[in-house]
Amino acid sequence: MKKKIRAIQYGVGPIGASIARLMREKQAIEIVGAIDSDPEKAGRDLGEVAGAPDAPWGVTISADAQEVLGLSADVVIHSTSSSLPAVMEQLLTCLEAEACIVSTCEELAYPYRTYPELAAQLDKAAKDWGVALVGTGVNPGFAMDKLLVTLAAVSQKIEHAKAVRIVDAATRRLPLQKKIGAGMSVEEFRAQVQAGTIKHVGLPESVAMVADSLNFAVDEITESIEPVVTAAQVKTEFLTVEAGQVAGVHQIARGMKDGKEIIYLELQMYVGAKSPADTVELRGQPNISLVIPGGSPGDIATASVVVNTIPVILDAPAGLRTARDLPIGFFSPDARP
Amino acid sequence: MKKKIRAIQYGVGPIGASIARLMREKQAIEIVGAIDSDPEKAGRDLGEVAGAPDAPWGVTISADAQEVLGLSADVVIHSTSSSLPAVMEQLLTCLEAEACIVSTCEELAYPYRTYPELAAQLDKAAKDWGVALVGTGVNPGFAMDKLLVTLAAVSQKIEHAKAVRIVDAATRRLPLQKKIGAGMSVEEFRAQVQAGTIKHVGLPESVAMVADSLNFAVDEITESIEPVVTAAQVKTEFLTVEAGQVAGVHQIARGMKDGKEIIYLELQMYVGAKSPADTVELRGQPNISLVIPGGSPGDIATASVVVNTIPVILDAPAGLRTARDLPIGFFSPDARP
Repeated sequence: MKKKIRAIQYGVGPIGASIARLMREKQAIEIVGAIDSDPEKAGRDLGEVAGAPDAPWGVTISADAQEVLGLSADVVIHSTSSSLPAVMEQLLTCLEAEACIVSTCEELAYPYRTYPELAAQLDKAAKDWGVALVGTGVNPGFAMDKLLVTLAAVSQKIEHAKAVRIVDAATRRLPLQKKIGAGMSVEEFRAQVQAGTIKHVGLPESVAMVADSLNFAVDEITESIEPVVTAAQVKTEFLTVEAGQVAGVHQIARGMKDGKEIIYLELQMYVGAKSPADTVELRGQPNISLVIPGGSPGDIATASVVVNTIPVILDAPAGLRTARDLPIGFFSPDARP
Repeated sequence: MKKKIRAIQYGVGPIGASIARLMREKQAIEIVGAIDSDPEKAGRDLGEVAGAPDAPWGVTISADAQEVLGLSADVVIHSTSSSLPAVMEQLLTCLEAEACIVSTCEELAYPYRTYPELAAQLDKAAKDWGVALVGTGVNPGFAMDKLLVTLAAVSQKIEHAKAVRIVDAATRRLPLQKKIGAGMSVEEFRAQVQAGTIKHVGLPESVAMVADSLNFAVDEITESIEPVVTAAQVKTEFLTVEAGQVAGVHQIARGMKDGKEIIYLELQMYVGAKSPADTVELRGQPNISLVIPGGSPGDIATASVVVNTIPVILDAPAGLRTARDLPIGFFSPDARP
């Protein structure tokens, strides 16, 4: 029998916690360590912080990344920030420990356009240490890019690519509802957008992945973010949005070529969204579309995509990878090590 | 600038012809040869036989496979038969010529269960010669397996997997309408099923691919084929099916474990089908489904998947590959060599 996959959870926020709980269900994985700099978490048991029913797990969260990475893990699941520049040192430290990485950092999902130097640096370090890394999740990583590229396999010509993701935030956790501005005035929403605190990160990365996959010579990527304002009161488990207040975000990213739109990605994430769904539409030969009614469920799906990517990244050639390159699939709870 | 991809078309039936026409549209491909044993085709120009508007192409079809394979191609597109035993010698000859292969042979799509020895033999030969091969198409290869496995990336647990493909054969070519028994009596249909002439090949291969991808310990794969009988007359461009006659096939393949169904694949292909679509449903955590309204268009999609797989197989590690392993995508007509 082979040894189990030795995994470290780096970052134990809400997403990191749900990833840790899911890893715990996989027979083939042993969680050997956890890293979080928050003094409220460091020193405590990972299972307890993650809210696992079977806690404690006997895995203590440490703020000392170097020390934990000394445990010779096969893979680090990294979930600390959306910003690639902010996590570069963390990622490089993991690579130096010769661990593969699956990260939820949205800007790592397809960094070649916004951060080509950082992408090259990570690729080189990963190759030097003989490991692979990838940034992924449900979005970016699946609903608005990988799924679209997969559907493109039945196409002969593509003139325009579109993906629309509509999420009813009413079923999501409170921090997410706040993060999208639910219950704010339009003024407050705009101020927070200006301050950079309200925004789903990752649409330009998905546009870039789609553009390269379809060989679209996109010369400009635009992005807009607007509030969705409710006409009538909406109540969730956590908060109430009054008529005229903000219910959430409406973001559109476009890939342009010579001033003409050839990629359109639209994300609506607000409390009370009526018809949640993931939709992909390709115009060309043939015209073809795909729908996931109800949409990929956000909280579940991000943890799923990340954990399902673990065996794939362990099997990938050394270097920086993206969801585009990887044959994603399912990592069964019963899979043997 | 790199050299173009040198491709050989092996088999110039209706599917081979549509593949050749599609390859012709790709800037990065040069078709250097074509093989077909049919004396009606050998000696003629490939473009003419393929019905291309820009024929002749200056590529002569030859019945001498060895001679054509001497042209040192990078890849052979192989489309001669659904039966793996029937094409083994053809495939081995291509591998010995150090050419990668993308084949429409349905039984090659996932041969490990039905033909484990042939699969091992092909894998070894491919590795010996340093090339890769794959059997693929829209079904098997996409609609009822790869798409399902891709959707599984958002799953945490899966209890049951289902795919349904409904095709309106009225929009397809005459040979296909005949192949599915359109216009026959039920008696004649059953006789032809017995004789093995009526059947879509590939459902058990898709079941096996799905089973292994989801780590389902399927101990039995069952397959049934029944006629779809029309209640009212249906007319197509080519033929008329009277009420009470057969309009096409209804095939169901199941993956069973301890007598319980855990995989269900259903193919309905008949003239006059009302709601053509490809549907995937996964029951588990979460329950999730996906629909391609109208379905992947059969004739177009098979050629698309095959040609879009060319750059992927050239990039794959040597050996026998399946759609499950390969990150499928789009091969742009404008892609540079």
